[in-house]
Amino acid sequence: MVAATTQGSDHAIAHQIHLLRPQSGSGGDRVPGASCLSWRLGVETNNIIGWITVPEACEGYVGNYMLGKQYRKDSKVVADEAFVYAKSLNLRMDGKDLWIFDIDETSLSNLPYYARHGFGVNPYNATFFNEWVATGKAPALPESLKLYNNILKLGIKIAFITGRPEDQTQVTATNLQNTGFHTWEKLILKGSSYAGKTAVVYKSAQRKKLEKIGFRIVGNIGDQWSDLLGTNGGNRTFKLPDPMYYIS
Amino acid sequence: MVAATTQGSDHAIAHQIHLLRPQSGSGGDRVPGASCLSWRLGVETNNIIGWITVPEACEGYVGNYMLGKQYRKDSKVVADEAFVYAKSLNLRMDGKDLWIFDIDETSLSNLPYYARHGFGVNPYNATFFNEWVATGKAPALPESLKLYNNILKLGIKIAFITGRPEDQTQVTATNLQNTGFHTWEKLILKGSSYAGKTAVVYKSAQRKKLEKIGFRIVGNIGDQWSDLLGTNGGNRTFKLPDPMYYIS
Repeated sequence: MVAATTQGSDHAIAHQIHLLRPQSGSGGDRVPGASCLSWRLGVETNNIIGWITVPEACEGYVGNYMLGKQYRKDSKVVADEAFVYAKSLNLRMDGKDLWIFDIDETSLSNLPYYARHGFGVNPYNATFFNEWVATGKAPALPESLKLYNNILKLGIKIAFITGRPEDQTQVTATNLQNTGFHTWEKLILKGSSYAGKTAVVYKSAQRKKLEKIGFRIVGNIGDQWSDLLGTNGGNRTFKLPDPMYYIS
Repeated sequence: MVAATTQGSDHAIAHQIHLLRPQSGSGGDRVPGASCLSWRLGVETNNIIGWITVPEACEGYVGNYMLGKQYRKDSKVVADEAFVYAKSLNLRMDGKDLWIFDIDETSLSNLPYYARHGFGVNPYNATFFNEWVATGKAPALPESLKLYNNILKLGIKIAFITGRPEDQTQVTATNLQNTGFHTWEKLILKGSSYAGKTAVVYKSAQRKKLEKIGFRIVGNIGDQWSDLLGTNGGNRTFKLPDPMYYIS
């Protein structure tokens, strides 16, 4: 959300990691005396951080939210607001204006997977999740796809930056193309040199590289705060809803 | 949310101002094809920025939210999460650990005023609002007061930083004391030198001054993103709900 200067980058990143590190007592097994609606708002506003799983008591609530109309409506408001902003920009039309899209729960939906795995109540299982990714059958998130097309029409280039590992490059590219995300300037997956690094560190570094080769990041959209925080975040950021998992 | 380094401060602030500047088309007179619930989530997540008034269609919704149980529940989750975090800190107990509280809609509630003025649908009226402030009758926000007391007990000092003008110092101090906020290290109101400056700029500058004299800002809570963004934001920030107005 805040782009620090180049000079301040390392410090700001270190600070971010600290901010996003799981805090004792913030585990996902607890709804602190409040409704699941309040829990979800706490998650979306970055007040509740570092959680591992959705509180068990909220499985039904999260499932209803994700499968019902509110998730779509909430996503539409974010996408609409992003497009209002994009249209307001004075673009130079030199091919250097860039918009960053995250992939999972931003461009592609893993809801078919999570619906079979407790909507985030079950701990993350890399084996099962990678099997799902390998099918290449994640549907597009409709409001994000609309935004993607509208942004492209304005003359802004697209870069996807995802925490998916590089060995999923081909299936990810195919999945994106099959669902309507037909073009991009960059498709960046997480290389092995970033293994064990947080998404904030990895994604900040990728955005910095893009700026170094001349791109101006005019917008940045993701479902995780770790898509948006850190350095080189872009001129404005947009947070899509995701009550199913937390990535620091 | 992100504290930039001292070196990078000016740039980061300039960037923030840009981020928070009202964007064309984001005025409060429009609910972009979506429900008031989605509008409120968009506001709380900082996706909808720069709005002047609550959309007219959402007056009833916002009124019900503010007067009903959900506002209290949502506030409680934030305050509880803040206290869980505060307890997890390794405090040095040297009197330099500091927590920043905003005042309006963070410590004191102006709901009695807003309930008579359309819950944010009516444009801000400085004359009427200052008359209300001058009564000194704003009640404490109960969950925030609990957090304040719990934080004090841990040995953390409190600083209030508010956008209220300095000529309201006495009535603000009395109002705070009468409602249970009985002590503080600093009570900072907006001086005339910051007239016309955004809250992000003014509040960042005040926090920077506090750090310069040796305080460590371990936490920061406010109802506006402009309480939390900018520089010197503190080790962790907490966003309380406020669907009634927007301050950049």
